Amino acid sequence: MSSIQNIDIKNIQEELRKFLEHTKKCLPHISIYTVIFSFNNDNLNVLLLRFGDTQYFSLPGGFVLKNEKIDDASLRILKKRTDLSKLYIEQFTTTGNVENPNEDIYNETLKKMGIVLPDNNLMNQRRISICYYSLIDAAKVNPKGNDFFVSEVKWRSVQKLPELMYDHKLIIEKAISKLQLDMDRKLVSYNLMNETFTMGELQKLYEAVFQREFTRTNFQRKMLSLNILERLDKKYSGESHKAPYLYRFKNIQ
Amino acid sequence: MSSIQNIDIKNIQEELRKFLEHTKKCLPHISIYTVIFSFNNDNLNVLLLRFGDTQYFSLPGGFVLKNEKIDDASLRILKKRTDLSKLYIEQFTTTGNVENPNEDIYNETLKKMGIVLPDNNLMNQRRISICYYSLIDAAKVNPKGNDFFVSEVKWRSVQKLPELMYDHKLIIEKAISKLQLDMDRKLVSYNLMNETFTMGELQKLYEAVFQREFTRTNFQRKMLSLNILERLDKKYSGESHKAPYLYRFKNIQ
Repeated sequence: MSSIQNIDIKNIQEELRKFLEHTKKCLPHISIYTVIFSFNNDNLNVLLLRFGDTQYFSLPGGFVLKNEKIDDASLRILKKRTDLSKLYIEQFTTTGNVENPNEDIYNETLKKMGIVLPDNNLMNQRRISICYYSLIDAAKVNPKGNDFFVSEVKWRSVQKLPELMYDHKLIIEKAISKLQLDMDRKLVSYNLMNETFTMGELQKLYEAVFQREFTRTNFQRKMLSLNILERLDKKYSGESHKAPYLYRFKNIQ
Repeated sequence: MSSIQNIDIKNIQEELRKFLEHTKKCLPHISIYTVIFSFNNDNLNVLLLRFGDTQYFSLPGGFVLKNEKIDDASLRILKKRTDLSKLYIEQFTTTGNVENPNEDIYNETLKKMGIVLPDNNLMNQRRISICYYSLIDAAKVNPKGNDFFVSEVKWRSVQKLPELMYDHKLIIEKAISKLQLDMDRKLVSYNLMNETFTMGELQKLYEAVFQREFTRTNFQRKMLSLNILERLDKKYSGESHKAPYLYRFKNIQ
């Protein structure tokens, strides 16, 4: 996680040149953003990129190649940031207001870095953002921020979000709503848990996602009624009779 | 609902000219499509446009003006087709595959009509489609299809869909899934009902949307438990003591 002060101007200019080459191959006016969730230390976290030397962060994002499906663009961007393939992704909204909030911060920061983008570059255009969320195990990832405008890549708790660029606060809020909905309808939570877990650990995930507390008995009753969990045998050794049961999700490949 | 054979070539060329003028003011590579639902004769219907003299239909759609929010573009397109403003809209997906199925039908039909679109016109480009659904009262609408490629505008039952252009079958299927989800979570069904209705009429709407039957007592119990309905007094006159209760939705402006 290098600080922007450590990147020399020659490197920035070289990264910028590559970036501009890439944007020529992409559709205009369209961005992809991905809210990458992980669950760690009882918190629901999102992966954010610090923008230059500012206090502003943005979501990992990118553009759509002219011959690329939008789902594939989202997976490509995820691979670039996390080195992981075949991640679970879920499209949840497309935002398309005319104004980009904080565009002045964007322009001033680039100026300070000695960067001038050509007129009508994708970054300067009005953009429509197709938004996905993904669920990953933070322990498996060494997140990357190898772009000229990224000075730091960080997991941040959704309860303590920093200042965000563009409409990214709204996008994260919508992603959390969709995740809550999907937790009730689809079997998505296994993406955020270890293979085996206690009921208490699962409850902590639900509490982090729904941002409220559940009572232990009600939570357990609800989870068992969904018929998605398999209870594993306790290993009787030493004090383990006091240990809680371990569970795993049924029917997960 | 004029047949395409009745439109003379001069009119088509004039409509085409206006259309091309309009597309110059729009963002490239982006379409808006709207699945307009109504509930009539116990069927969930969608508004479809017949494409030229073919057996293929498409959803009402359009493009996004360079200075227009995407929600506003959806409302503008709805107004153009229905003359109604302030309709309920819900964005539910964005599709973005590289290939447009049935593009050959599209090109051949235009050719037969003597229409040649300029290269790289919005209609020939690879397009990403932002999709909305809307719920309207079919009785209030005289749907319009005043485009050079539309020969007929029709309500069609979702259970008997005709052949559809592009990926519009998939879009309609996704719209129905989202509508089902929203019926359970949000108060959207009032958009499809008269102001007052019997429990039996409401059950018919649910059966049309969910494409399955409910038992009368279970349906009634579920609806009443949601606490969204207000039961009106029966009017005692003649045989009306046999008439079912009328209901209306609570808290609808």
